[in-house]
Amino acid sequence: MNEDALIAALAEIVAPARSRVLLGIGDDAAVWQPSRSHRSVVTTDALVEGVHFDPSWMSWREIGARAFEANLSDIAAMGARPVLATIALGVPAGAATESFLELYRGIAASAARADCTVAGGDVTRTPVVTLCVTVIGEVRATSLKLRAGAKKGDAIVTTGKLGASRAGLCVLRGDVALEGERRDWALRAYRAPVARLAEGRWLGASTSVHAMMDISDGLSTDLARLCARSGVGAVVETLPVCHAAVDAAGALGVDPGTFALAGGEEYELLAAVDGRAYKHLAARFRARFGRELFRVGTFRAEDGIVLRGDDGLETPVARTGWDSLESQ
Amino acid sequence: MNEDALIAALAEIVAPARSRVLLGIGDDAAVWQPSRSHRSVVTTDALVEGVHFDPSWMSWREIGARAFEANLSDIAAMGARPVLATIALGVPAGAATESFLELYRGIAASAARADCTVAGGDVTRTPVVTLCVTVIGEVRATSLKLRAGAKKGDAIVTTGKLGASRAGLCVLRGDVALEGERRDWALRAYRAPVARLAEGRWLGASTSVHAMMDISDGLSTDLARLCARSGVGAVVETLPVCHAAVDAAGALGVDPGTFALAGGEEYELLAAVDGRAYKHLAARFRARFGRELFRVGTFRAEDGIVLRGDDGLETPVARTGWDSLESQ
Repeated sequence: MNEDALIAALAEIVAPARSRVLLGIGDDAAVWQPSRSHRSVVTTDALVEGVHFDPSWMSWREIGARAFEANLSDIAAMGARPVLATIALGVPAGAATESFLELYRGIAASAARADCTVAGGDVTRTPVVTLCVTVIGEVRATSLKLRAGAKKGDAIVTTGKLGASRAGLCVLRGDVALEGERRDWALRAYRAPVARLAEGRWLGASTSVHAMMDISDGLSTDLARLCARSGVGAVVETLPVCHAAVDAAGALGVDPGTFALAGGEEYELLAAVDGRAYKHLAARFRARFGRELFRVGTFRAEDGIVLRGDDGLETPVARTGWDSLESQ
Repeated sequence: MNEDALIAALAEIVAPARSRVLLGIGDDAAVWQPSRSHRSVVTTDALVEGVHFDPSWMSWREIGARAFEANLSDIAAMGARPVLATIALGVPAGAATESFLELYRGIAASAARADCTVAGGDVTRTPVVTLCVTVIGEVRATSLKLRAGAKKGDAIVTTGKLGASRAGLCVLRGDVALEGERRDWALRAYRAPVARLAEGRWLGASTSVHAMMDISDGLSTDLARLCARSGVGAVVETLPVCHAAVDAAGALGVDPGTFALAGGEEYELLAAVDGRAYKHLAARFRARFGRELFRVGTFRAEDGIVLRGDDGLETPVARTGWDSLESQ
């Protein structure tokens, strides 16, 4: 199959363009009509076989959806909604075309869920499968949330429990053997994460939310990034660790908290919420989404991140999360 | 150097954001304010070491600029101007950091020339150097030019002579030995191509231009793509081949025309111009840019592309240009 034929086959898989996207795959560039009252946002992520995914650990469809969700999560973290996406796919010589059609079916399913048009792309020859996804979104200026903006006294919150994705990775690596529902939960968290798009837009629209980002590289790494941008420090009091991660940590003989601090690729949102508004916002969040908005701790003026035990003792938290260049 | 440190070093190299770009590198996504009266366009290209470039053939700075110009060329082909860009850089373990700083200096120089802000990016670990560039631009709805739109009777035009980049590739491969100015010209065409941004916007603004694209994969391949989108065929009468390509073809004992038909990566624009307006437009183009707008032939209703000789005989033209998946 040559380049034009493969691009045509891939274009057929992704949904037809929505009305705001005026021109999709097949020209030099994709064209859309930006919303007049909004800001535009753009994010890019590259995923590489053997580094970010292992085709023996999940299906090609899951690999495609997962790559797309990672970018949607960045859009969610800005309080924005996705509009259109472009894909650059790198294909090794001799690889089965059906794999890439499956990968695109995963992308298409994820894009359809997010009401996002896959409007352009590039196919090229690479040594291993490489997928570079770019997603463009939009957000009202008043709903845009950055990493900068957290204030001392703000509650540190997450949109869900952490550690499931890392528990799934431990299962796939053969490090631990979970069973039943918890095994399924952990594997699904790793293989089929879902970006918190609705939650991101909802939190973005609240004036009580001062800063936001997604937790893609582990809480310790990403909280340090948010603190650095905001010029504050943080006291972590409670780590919301999911049951699967507690079990996996128990089997490995490590503190369950490490699964939250040093996890990654789970795409819950991390936000700074006005301390006085937290209880009310969490109640509204529960009513809207049927889930908890977990309070992890409190931002403070002093630099650095510490874990405060029940005894009041503070232990510095090292950055132990995923670093693309060092965590190999 | 860890991920955050490398991103910070790279962010320092690229120019500070222009006023319309509200947030650059360092958050989950880049943010900009789209122009109210324009359409937005986006294009993505991936470049891979050993496939699209060879670090022994050019400097890292040239590799960066070249990758960026390839995307700018797609923006030019829509009649648009670039606004902002994101970069996903894949770095092999153990590679020298200075290489990537140089690569980014090349990107920064190209972006500055184009008045385009590098506003976001991602750094990741890859087996070989991989660079995925996404450029977002904007264009007035009335200036937007697509591949579709060419009509029978339209002149087929190019913004420059063809074949220089392929001549440069032949020199680098050791297939031919050019000398002096022609050698320099060919090598510069291959190593340091420049997207026809001003020409693209100028042609886009003309109602006599019915369709446009850039010639990145060779005239035979790209003219076939434009014909397919427009539902027309083409008669090629004259191939504008540069002196360096004529010399290289002579040394190889092949028809110089093959250097234009099967070249690639030279980024001249290919356009369909109203047949009656061509002479006037070419005179204005010469006055504005000091160069020729070459007439290659004429679009016609019958499918297929033919080369018409001085004797009036027509020979079908096969697609002999670059195909990312088959031309290895």
